[in-house]
Amino acid sequence: MRTTELFAPTLREVPAEAEIVSHQLLLRAGFIRREAAGVYTYLPLALRVLKKINQIIREEMDRHGGQELQMPIIQSAELWQESGRWDVYGPELFRLKDRHDRDFALGPTHEEIITALVRSEVNSYKQLPLLLYQIQNKYRDERRPRFGLLRGREFIMKDLYSFDRDEQGLQLSYQKMHDAYTQVFRRCGLRFRPVEADSGAIGGSDTHEFMVLADSGEATILFCEKESCGYAANVEKAALTNVLTKTGEDLKQLAEVSTPGAHTVEEVANFLHVSPQKIIKTLLYETEEEVVAALVRGDRDVNEIKLSNALHCLHLKLAGAGTVQDITGARVGFAGPVNLKSVRIIADLEISALVNAVSGANKDDTHLINVNPVRDFTIDIIADIRMVQAGEPCPRCGSTLKEAKGIEVGQIFKLGDKYSKVLGATYLDESGQKKTIIMGCYGIGVSRTMAAAIEQNHDQDGIIWPVAIAPYHVVVVPVSVKDENQAAMAEKVYHRLVEAGIETVIDDRPERAGVKFKDADLIGCPLRITVGAKAVANEQVEVRVRKTGETIMVPVDRVESFVLDQLGKL
Amino acid sequence: MRTTELFAPTLREVPAEAEIVSHQLLLRAGFIRREAAGVYTYLPLALRVLKKINQIIREEMDRHGGQELQMPIIQSAELWQESGRWDVYGPELFRLKDRHDRDFALGPTHEEIITALVRSEVNSYKQLPLLLYQIQNKYRDERRPRFGLLRGREFIMKDLYSFDRDEQGLQLSYQKMHDAYTQVFRRCGLRFRPVEADSGAIGGSDTHEFMVLADSGEATILFCEKESCGYAANVEKAALTNVLTKTGEDLKQLAEVSTPGAHTVEEVANFLHVSPQKIIKTLLYETEEEVVAALVRGDRDVNEIKLSNALHCLHLKLAGAGTVQDITGARVGFAGPVNLKSVRIIADLEISALVNAVSGANKDDTHLINVNPVRDFTIDIIADIRMVQAGEPCPRCGSTLKEAKGIEVGQIFKLGDKYSKVLGATYLDESGQKKTIIMGCYGIGVSRTMAAAIEQNHDQDGIIWPVAIAPYHVVVVPVSVKDENQAAMAEKVYHRLVEAGIETVIDDRPERAGVKFKDADLIGCPLRITVGAKAVANEQVEVRVRKTGETIMVPVDRVESFVLDQLGKL
Repeated sequence: MRTTELFAPTLREVPAEAEIVSHQLLLRAGFIRREAAGVYTYLPLALRVLKKINQIIREEMDRHGGQELQMPIIQSAELWQESGRWDVYGPELFRLKDRHDRDFALGPTHEEIITALVRSEVNSYKQLPLLLYQIQNKYRDERRPRFGLLRGREFIMKDLYSFDRDEQGLQLSYQKMHDAYTQVFRRCGLRFRPVEADSGAIGGSDTHEFMVLADSGEATILFCEKESCGYAANVEKAALTNVLTKTGEDLKQLAEVSTPGAHTVEEVANFLHVSPQKIIKTLLYETEEEVVAALVRGDRDVNEIKLSNALHCLHLKLAGAGTVQDITGARVGFAGPVNLKSVRIIADLEISALVNAVSGANKDDTHLINVNPVRDFTIDIIADIRMVQAGEPCPRCGSTLKEAKGIEVGQIFKLGDKYSKVLGATYLDESGQKKTIIMGCYGIGVSRTMAAAIEQNHDQDGIIWPVAIAPYHVVVVPVSVKDENQAAMAEKVYHRLVEAGIETVIDDRPERAGVKFKDADLIGCPLRITVGAKAVANEQVEVRVRKTGETIMVPVDRVESFVLDQLGKL
Repeated sequence: MRTTELFAPTLREVPAEAEIVSHQLLLRAGFIRREAAGVYTYLPLALRVLKKINQIIREEMDRHGGQELQMPIIQSAELWQESGRWDVYGPELFRLKDRHDRDFALGPTHEEIITALVRSEVNSYKQLPLLLYQIQNKYRDERRPRFGLLRGREFIMKDLYSFDRDEQGLQLSYQKMHDAYTQVFRRCGLRFRPVEADSGAIGGSDTHEFMVLADSGEATILFCEKESCGYAANVEKAALTNVLTKTGEDLKQLAEVSTPGAHTVEEVANFLHVSPQKIIKTLLYETEEEVVAALVRGDRDVNEIKLSNALHCLHLKLAGAGTVQDITGARVGFAGPVNLKSVRIIADLEISALVNAVSGANKDDTHLINVNPVRDFTIDIIADIRMVQAGEPCPRCGSTLKEAKGIEVGQIFKLGDKYSKVLGATYLDESGQKKTIIMGCYGIGVSRTMAAAIEQNHDQDGIIWPVAIAPYHVVVVPVSVKDENQAAMAEKVYHRLVEAGIETVIDDRPERAGVKFKDADLIGCPLRITVGAKAVANEQVEVRVRKTGETIMVPVDRVESFVLDQLGKL
């Protein structure tokens, strides 16, 4: 491809709309353009990357027993009503009506359609297992679309659904997909981790997220420092197994102390000269059914996902100042579990081990000291409801946990019978018994993976594509196209590479070399080949590795073998 | 692939919902399933066919200078308002609102988005020409979706847009695409014709449709019997160039005759013993602005598209009985141009050559004889407004026109400045002058092409895929999988073929041979290889050609070379 013909308009300025680096670079390097909030056109360079990711995904899905099909994007509301999700799904669902006033949605996911399809077409155990997938635009009407392709309203997904006879079959399909996903991201050339995750609204039991590691990632991962252990989890999920026991300390007498203006844990700790570990932090949450008081140690944070799961509630938010005043009789900052009426108390595991602790007194500017669980207040639910932190012991092996940031690019779920039961997808087993099909679902964000690859692989000059998903492998830059010898040699190098099957761009624009180097760095193909005056004189060209900046002089007559060799090493 | 693992559920019965053969066979052979009216899931076999068509299209678009990108499916209303089409486009446009109540449409076509993109990114003549395309789901909310994939509401399209400096550049791009389309349909193995067509609502000047020839086609094509001439046109477009002159006959005196109960041309001709060629057929049409009287000879039919174009109107329909009564003072069947007040008269070219003709008298049960244009009535517009018929002379060379039926699978348009002008897509030429970009647009219905291929290539037993777009090339059928020797030889043949890169299915189901043969014919792969008892005895297998029914015995040890050879010949 010639740069003079390639539609890849680069920008010198960082677009104001772009908050994060992948968004900035995708715009600047001419990969995408914004059409509406969270809606983008993929220009030719981006489409080449997406196709390579898709191809890797297809190969791995097929190799692991998947069959590709394509379901519609517009989905009739009927099946969503049957599954019950039409009413439950919030404003994230794009809804529309056809000319006959019938309801449709733009598919955010395809559990209903695929389950109904399998319900119609599968009758016998002989037809199972079945793994069906598609790669397609998906839709989610985000309240605040942002971060470019990381949180769009139209995005590309691979979604696979597995259909098995039983949980054992599901476990096999799940493991197949875990392996396939590992292969996909490995082949894409990304550093990533599969982590245990919370299954959230989709339901089901086990689930893993595949995280591309990047400092800009919005997810926090905790992983065991011991590689042989392998434990890794989204911080939302990271579980605790350690049971604390009380110290032998004598229980002292409960007493009220005045703590004027001390609202925060830090203020109270300083004021009373106690460690935050001795303080009971009391937070009031509202669910769709009740207000609860959640207790964690002063040095901990509530994990709202664990809290939701423990309460079996759908929605959860911190109570407002008015509610806090009504329930505690005090301003925010002075709530505590002692004599707290009319709400249930849910305490983190660590709370029951506290002796002679400090808590709010439900009275302005006042705290209690020598608070002791059971003696001074009743806990309704004891559960793991706090955030685990780096430095704590690994719940699997006891070594120390470390922290990393990641971008979720894939997730695999065990759905069980959640959809097949309500939609009636069954099969007959060997003895003619009707059984419910057991399902799993498995997603990869394709456009998101492209953006995550950039978050992980870039420098101040631009993108650094992993070879496997680079839009082109090599850009050939004649320093001056006006110099006939340079132009001729650049063409010669270009044709040698193309004939060797190497995906190559020649930057044949009559621009200054500096402009062309800048664009080459910005677009980020793995190798740049510079053809200047010296090259012409010595029949040698300079090959520059984008990732390391290393330059090597290579004779023109073996440039293609050198390039193939370098690409293999990168 | 093994049939026991392939998700291709075949049906024995012809589904009641399917009116035409491609729809029936796509359902029966397990290629598609209906999700809603005009909305389908493409099962694995269909997706394989679609991907092959897409690949051929991509190769030809790229070879002819196209660059692939991908625009969004959901389009903000703003650009459509800017182009004026938001209000003009009828209920065929799927419209929706996002959570912030902003208007969007599901793209039926992408002129607005691509023109706005080029408006932002192209400034200089150096960036032109530019040919950009995508392959994507498109949406049209048909009032009555039917014929399966031939008239769906969600369908797959390739749309390319060309951007040139001037009409001359457009002509080159147009010719490139004409060539590319010819290659695409040739490579798909289809019999087709490019035909002149009417440009209709998209506007612009030249346009050609690419028609797959099939008796079930809804379009009528007229083409010159002389191959060297090459004239071919959609009957809607087929033009007339022959000028008729009046006979030398003396003009006789206008007279009224009673024609009780004679409404139709045939009845009047019989009653008055005149040829239909002597009768003036008068039809009243309503447009959005007026009622007009359209006159054609009794042996001709009005071509409503030509009539619309001649009147420059958007909508056109035959006037109802009430309007006819109001304007002519008579029942339907007795309208005529003489003394017809208050409407404009538009007459076909042939009308002005009539002498002593017959027409309705605008009076019940009465006609006029010896009607002569100019003397007896005034014509407001003379134009070519009739249907051309097979048997008439070719407008290019004068030879005889023949008729064929076709299915439109592609259309290419010269848009000119229709979109670039209103959206302000300009460039600076060599002298710094601002000029409007000149555009063309070029569509291929991908899913429609798959259906058209079936309409053209099938028999009573099922589909007969052209090799280039067949889902698989060969199906290997062991007559009895319970016979270990047969099963083993079938596996051997299967592996030889797969290793030779031949796309092969082995029907390893424990079904009767008859069932497997029926399914093989239904699905329609080009070759079937039967492995029975005789095959095992002689180390020979039977290769059957789906298209001809021919069977050839082939030694197992050279089955793959024979198959490759056969596929090359088909």
